[in-house]
Amino acid sequence: MKLIRFGDIGKEKPGVQTEDGKWLDVSAFVQDYDEAFFGEDGIAHLREWLNKNAANCPEIPKETRLGPPLARPSKLVCVGLNYAKHAEESGMAVPKEPVLFFKSTTAICGPYDEVIIPKNSVKTDWEVELAIVIGKKASYIEESEAFDHIAGYVLHNDISERTFQIEKGGQWCKGKGCDTFAPLGPYIATTDEIKDPNNLELWLDVNGERLQHSSTSDFVFNVQEVVSYISQYMTLLPGDVISTGTPFGVGLGFTPPRYLKPGDCMELGIEGLGKSKQTCIAYKK
Amino acid sequence: MKLIRFGDIGKEKPGVQTEDGKWLDVSAFVQDYDEAFFGEDGIAHLREWLNKNAANCPEIPKETRLGPPLARPSKLVCVGLNYAKHAEESGMAVPKEPVLFFKSTTAICGPYDEVIIPKNSVKTDWEVELAIVIGKKASYIEESEAFDHIAGYVLHNDISERTFQIEKGGQWCKGKGCDTFAPLGPYIATTDEIKDPNNLELWLDVNGERLQHSSTSDFVFNVQEVVSYISQYMTLLPGDVISTGTPFGVGLGFTPPRYLKPGDCMELGIEGLGKSKQTCIAYKK
Repeated sequence: MKLIRFGDIGKEKPGVQTEDGKWLDVSAFVQDYDEAFFGEDGIAHLREWLNKNAANCPEIPKETRLGPPLARPSKLVCVGLNYAKHAEESGMAVPKEPVLFFKSTTAICGPYDEVIIPKNSVKTDWEVELAIVIGKKASYIEESEAFDHIAGYVLHNDISERTFQIEKGGQWCKGKGCDTFAPLGPYIATTDEIKDPNNLELWLDVNGERLQHSSTSDFVFNVQEVVSYISQYMTLLPGDVISTGTPFGVGLGFTPPRYLKPGDCMELGIEGLGKSKQTCIAYKK
Repeated sequence: MKLIRFGDIGKEKPGVQTEDGKWLDVSAFVQDYDEAFFGEDGIAHLREWLNKNAANCPEIPKETRLGPPLARPSKLVCVGLNYAKHAEESGMAVPKEPVLFFKSTTAICGPYDEVIIPKNSVKTDWEVELAIVIGKKASYIEESEAFDHIAGYVLHNDISERTFQIEKGGQWCKGKGCDTFAPLGPYIATTDEIKDPNNLELWLDVNGERLQHSSTSDFVFNVQEVVSYISQYMTLLPGDVISTGTPFGVGLGFTPPRYLKPGDCMELGIEGLGKSKQTCIAYKK
């Protein structure tokens, strides 16, 4: 099943994308894709309900805005430097255990929303990533239990401001949480749709030029290692998002570095998770 | 006004502590102290409602558990090394701009709850801190506007596992977000109760021995600088929490270092914000 959310910013409703690509409004059955939905086995209940009611669901016109396909997770945890070649281009060592950081959840936006280059930014950069959506509360879980705690997967562009992230002292979060820095979607693919999350092609183009192209088979730490590892340090709630890191090819790694400017267009995709597209605009008060 | 939340974990209801120390149940008027409450001028409306209805509010027995005095903030942002003498004891330089990191909001617990020493922890440490509760959405605000965006203040113990924080590679968040690592409360004091948040005495005892004792007048970056600064890097939502850093006297700073063990009892307080008390227990599955 493919979960979408549609409508104006902050007023999104839940929907599904059918196998033949239609968008159906399921707000008659579920209020939103949030912690309660994922935690109360909402995916199974929605599937069952759709079996009987899909024919009566209003179809959503394709010109409708898609929002991020989940609502207000308690956290958006990211794994840093999780592809060896990206660690190298960043001038950092391949980590011995997963590097973790948070993105502010206020950074989350829809898959086709404009990305705002923040005030005073000169180094806004792209990062295509596979993100995991947690389906069941996870604390101190083993790798062998990890897949039981996953609801699905979603495409994520982990936009990063490198000056804010690296040159401002201390931790990375300053460069990761600006508004619109976490486009999610187009949809959450539930686990039954993704045979092996550790073997998915992913790519990102800027203005039509392919700059990132890799496979999650190149992970330093795979999906089950990452979920288990994070759960040793914090409790993951249903609907929480884990982003698994980006491969080689970010702007920081070029000589000289290449950064985003207003008008630049990013298109990105992951096998089985669709494509997203964001155009950059300058910050305006 | 002093806002409290009371009841079992996950089922807390909102209340207030009156000037003569009574606890009143205000759940007849407001569902919870969350983003909607703070964002919709809930404090002013509650005050007005209480003027007429306080006499009819059920009194809460004093043996009732207090929860954290707010519900599920979108973020808990912390300022690191914000007292010069604490930076020194941590072996780090006094920062030129605020060091920021996130605590997982799943770490939040009540002011008298037990603190769980995590599995495999050997360096669990204390940190008394003044925390700010945001009252109005804040993005790119000036220092002169900061106080307009604050709803109140609350006592916070920023419990930290130093091995997880410092010795595991990368960012600090691994050692900051374990369950029960963010006792908040006993109450949120609304801004009218705190004349000058940049001049409050704060202290922390372990097993009756005073180990931290300072004043927020020793801040490297004061309340308005911190709020304005963070708002340049992310949007702060109503109900979000900013913790302003801890003074000298944490376990890490002793020679040899002193860390918490099961049975240890922390008592802490800030002038005008009351006291809290947590006893440590070992993690049990």
